[in-house]
Amino acid sequence: MKRSSLYGMGCVTGLVIVLFARSAATAQDSAQYTPQYSNGTHLVLPKDYRQWVFLSSGIGMTYSGTPGENPPFENVFVNAAAHQEFLKTGTWPDKTILLLEIRKSESKVSINKAGRVQSNVQAIEAHVKDSSHSTDSGGWAFYGFPAGGALGRPFEKTADCFSCHQQNGATDTTFVQFYPTLVEAAKAHGTYNETEHK
Amino acid sequence: MKRSSLYGMGCVTGLVIVLFARSAATAQDSAQYTPQYSNGTHLVLPKDYRQWVFLSSGIGMTYSGTPGENPPFENVFVNAAAHQEFLKTGTWPDKTILLLEIRKSESKVSINKAGRVQSNVQAIEAHVKDSSHSTDSGGWAFYGFPAGGALGRPFEKTADCFSCHQQNGATDTTFVQFYPTLVEAAKAHGTYNETEHK
Repeated sequence: MKRSSLYGMGCVTGLVIVLFARSAATAQDSAQYTPQYSNGTHLVLPKDYRQWVFLSSGIGMTYSGTPGENPPFENVFVNAAAHQEFLKTGTWPDKTILLLEIRKSESKVSINKAGRVQSNVQAIEAHVKDSSHSTDSGGWAFYGFPAGGALGRPFEKTADCFSCHQQNGATDTTFVQFYPTLVEAAKAHGTYNETEHK
Repeated sequence: MKRSSLYGMGCVTGLVIVLFARSAATAQDSAQYTPQYSNGTHLVLPKDYRQWVFLSSGIGMTYSGTPGENPPFENVFVNAAAHQEFLKTGTWPDKTILLLEIRKSESKVSINKAGRVQSNVQAIEAHVKDSSHSTDSGGWAFYGFPAGGALGRPFEKTADCFSCHQQNGATDTTFVQFYPTLVEAAKAHGTYNETEHK
């Protein structure tokens, strides 16, 4: 109920909140970005995250073994300052924001005859390391944005994402094993945990 | 023969050329980048292109109708200055560089059970608009880099890429129809050609 009332809001008050939330992120770019919250709980979607550093795309990824019929693409972006720090140290600094953008896929688009291409955004999720905001889970928290939503609702600490990332993330509860350009830095700095993601 | 002698070079002279080519691009970032050439013909791979603006990924895309068995991912990046100009005007400025990074895909990696994730780079291709270097095809030229190669060999003007992009590219011989975040800007500026990519 809370979720639908937040994202389905059509009243003037709700509109003002969304507009304010968007303007709060406008002046910040990828190198200077720090997490912004609304009402102290909901993450404001970084306006220019599509110009952040791209880590990788997967398609139809699943950890349950049941592939979907119309597999979505999953693009992952990170703020530039955190990316630079990871390359230097193999660890994520405080104020790291990883954004997972889930897009529908299509096949017969334009002259494409097979394979799949990306289309509309289905949802966005964020994985944020902010010790001033989250005091457990190493400072990490997860947020979910519906398609077109500017505010990310925090996942409960009991959500599967926390335990799964804790158990299987190669580096600092993140899935560095799926980001080819980061694996070398993590291994060089001894922060790549081979055993936790078998 | 020329291709194998260039990319297969193991002699000291060849090594010096590669090292020089890499250092030439080091000081330039995505916002200031301009194309650099070696011997006046071969494009120097921009060192930090993975931190450029990501446009989209496809998987197993083919225009011939024959899908491959082990479909590669195709990531497309563009330099930040050109991206900003495109959003403002719906056109690509001179010195635009689009980089197509082709990566192998794998499925059962870590805890992933289905779908596909990205692995090693197979090859890189560049589509460069540089009127001071290419006097025909609207200033555009194509270059091909082998995996790990720092120098891109120019495609002949008779190569299929020129005619295919000319006939099917939605905007200025580029496949904007496959880049979801650019379609709106092109349509708003009247530069999106609906008829040329059916």
